[in-house]
Amino acid sequence: MNRRTVLGSALIGAAASAAGVASAASGKPAARSAARASGRTGPLNLITDVEGIKVGQAHDAGVRTGVTVILAEKPAVAAVDVRGGGPAGRETDVLRPENLVQEVDAIILSGGSVYGLGSADSVAAWMGMRGRGYGMGGAPGVPPSPIIPTACLYDLANGGNKQWEMEPPYRRLSVQALEAAGDRFNLGTAGAGYGAEAGALKGGIGSASAVMASGWTVGAIVAVNSVGSVVAPGGKTFWASPYEIEDEFGGLGSSGLHASAEDWGLSKFGARPRENTTIACIATDVALTRVELQRMAIMAQDGMARAIRPAHAPFDGDTLFCLSTGKKVIENPAMRQVAVAQLGNVAADVLARSVARGVYHATNYEGVSGKTWREMK
Amino acid sequence: MNRRTVLGSALIGAAASAAGVASAASGKPAARSAARASGRTGPLNLITDVEGIKVGQAHDAGVRTGVTVILAEKPAVAAVDVRGGGPAGRETDVLRPENLVQEVDAIILSGGSVYGLGSADSVAAWMGMRGRGYGMGGAPGVPPSPIIPTACLYDLANGGNKQWEMEPPYRRLSVQALEAAGDRFNLGTAGAGYGAEAGALKGGIGSASAVMASGWTVGAIVAVNSVGSVVAPGGKTFWASPYEIEDEFGGLGSSGLHASAEDWGLSKFGARPRENTTIACIATDVALTRVELQRMAIMAQDGMARAIRPAHAPFDGDTLFCLSTGKKVIENPAMRQVAVAQLGNVAADVLARSVARGVYHATNYEGVSGKTWREMK
Repeated sequence: MNRRTVLGSALIGAAASAAGVASAASGKPAARSAARASGRTGPLNLITDVEGIKVGQAHDAGVRTGVTVILAEKPAVAAVDVRGGGPAGRETDVLRPENLVQEVDAIILSGGSVYGLGSADSVAAWMGMRGRGYGMGGAPGVPPSPIIPTACLYDLANGGNKQWEMEPPYRRLSVQALEAAGDRFNLGTAGAGYGAEAGALKGGIGSASAVMASGWTVGAIVAVNSVGSVVAPGGKTFWASPYEIEDEFGGLGSSGLHASAEDWGLSKFGARPRENTTIACIATDVALTRVELQRMAIMAQDGMARAIRPAHAPFDGDTLFCLSTGKKVIENPAMRQVAVAQLGNVAADVLARSVARGVYHATNYEGVSGKTWREMK
Repeated sequence: MNRRTVLGSALIGAAASAAGVASAASGKPAARSAARASGRTGPLNLITDVEGIKVGQAHDAGVRTGVTVILAEKPAVAAVDVRGGGPAGRETDVLRPENLVQEVDAIILSGGSVYGLGSADSVAAWMGMRGRGYGMGGAPGVPPSPIIPTACLYDLANGGNKQWEMEPPYRRLSVQALEAAGDRFNLGTAGAGYGAEAGALKGGIGSASAVMASGWTVGAIVAVNSVGSVVAPGGKTFWASPYEIEDEFGGLGSSGLHASAEDWGLSKFGARPRENTTIACIATDVALTRVELQRMAIMAQDGMARAIRPAHAPFDGDTLFCLSTGKKVIENPAMRQVAVAQLGNVAADVLARSVARGVYHATNYEGVSGKTWREMK
């Protein structure tokens, strides 16, 4: 009756323990009857729980912008999935499966829209002068080519001082961020999320992680600057609430979820294109090919769909990167696609949680009040 | 404080009436405090509420398969968005924006995996002999070319008799379906959803519609045969519950939504590729270009992500078509992208509702019991 096949507990975790329709429907395990997700986060509940991934951030409070650098300690296999209507990106074509380079050195998420794309210039120079990057050989005087795919969000109209003329701050901020890279970093009004707005609420940087029954880790980081709302209309229940683990973003439960047709709730409704964009990076320690990672990125993108309504609008530049550090190996070759499906499912949940955490932790700009989720009644 | 801009009630409906963060948070309108979505469906709550769209279905109970034809009374502008890892499709490249033909004559959703692709053969012949289809002129003896993009789901292993040898039933079923096309059709175990399984539950054909404040109509139809579950783990709450209108799929509310990390709930977990697939078609009466319709399709795909967990897995062939019959015109050219965003948002909701309705209405095959949502305790 039940079509689920038990594939070994190491691979399919909790799903493998379930029985038929009738018994599953009666919801035996106590943990499941609570209106809360169960699951295990990594020790920090951050993307840096994935071994080999470090994050650094920097911001400029006067400009109301910032940069987040996701550093792969060793080159990592990468994929990208762009679903927004107004993306600002760099080095995304390099990630197409048919292209030469398989691995990246870092991913940058940045404020500043097209100006933010410059953040990768200085990080490339910084890395290149230290001999890091892709190279066809090692001829003297020939610098390697660091591969640093970058996505930017639009924060040009958030009230900060953008009179930078010939010197946008992104080259400076990105090196500051890179040099600050470590395991711990701030959520909320920080890094690429410093100047972000998530619909009508203050947006920010969110991150979360999950450790699977197999011991595999999946982490996510996201800068939430969506046109859509992260809470359901008429309240403050996060769309991501069904995925919340241990009150990590307030623990309100999911009973407040209801959509109300054309009511976008606390969205940032406007006709001006490119003023929004949610940008994200997923990482896992499981070794995947670039093509497998592409499927994982596609599945992970669903986390954005679940946490933000609407997502992927013409005015969003929604872009999602996916990294594999390759520390863990899938031992049974016949199970690779199943593993991809499991990782993709977990990644979608972790991303949805990260979106909520970014807004949950956001604080107001100095001298401003009333824009944050925490201030909502 | 609130960035939403009022853009005229005809265009942005309920969203336009909202105020700032504080007041929206207090949730004034009574309708919003109920844990239920508000919104208006068309008279039938089916995709055929979109003027100019008819649907016909046929099935073979012994084979446990069927076909659904979505007929555009006049050629309709179309787009497609493929996000599953194992699609079975036909005439999808024709829909790329840079290609010649702008309009389609029908969309077919079919069971039968690769065999189901033959369903379009006989529909093309049927239409061609009646002079319907794309043609560069009208030379005597030269039939036109009916454009009939088709997507199939995998129902080959559902226990029906598939010993069809050289005569798969799809050419026959599709003409039967076409000739039955009208405004009313069955949901659940019918048409392309006859042999479908939605995770561990009996799947089926779902359909729903929404009439926007502007008077625009959006409808969806979907055959739900997902690897993922349409209900949250440990219970029978539909993932689509936040979008439900007027108890259209049981009215259980959303408080049972919780994800439980690696527990896929009532999914169809299996390592065999191409045994799943959710295929859908959205329609609207609003005149959009093919490129605008592509964006609407991308946004609509999020409805699948919200209603099914996981979606877009390697083992899914998830494919979504989008049709515009062009009966209503967007009068303000500056508002076109806003309109696309509104339509895409509504389409995602309508698709999520359709997924739940397909499973809600599903009945068992003759002589089988215990596989349906309705039988769950």
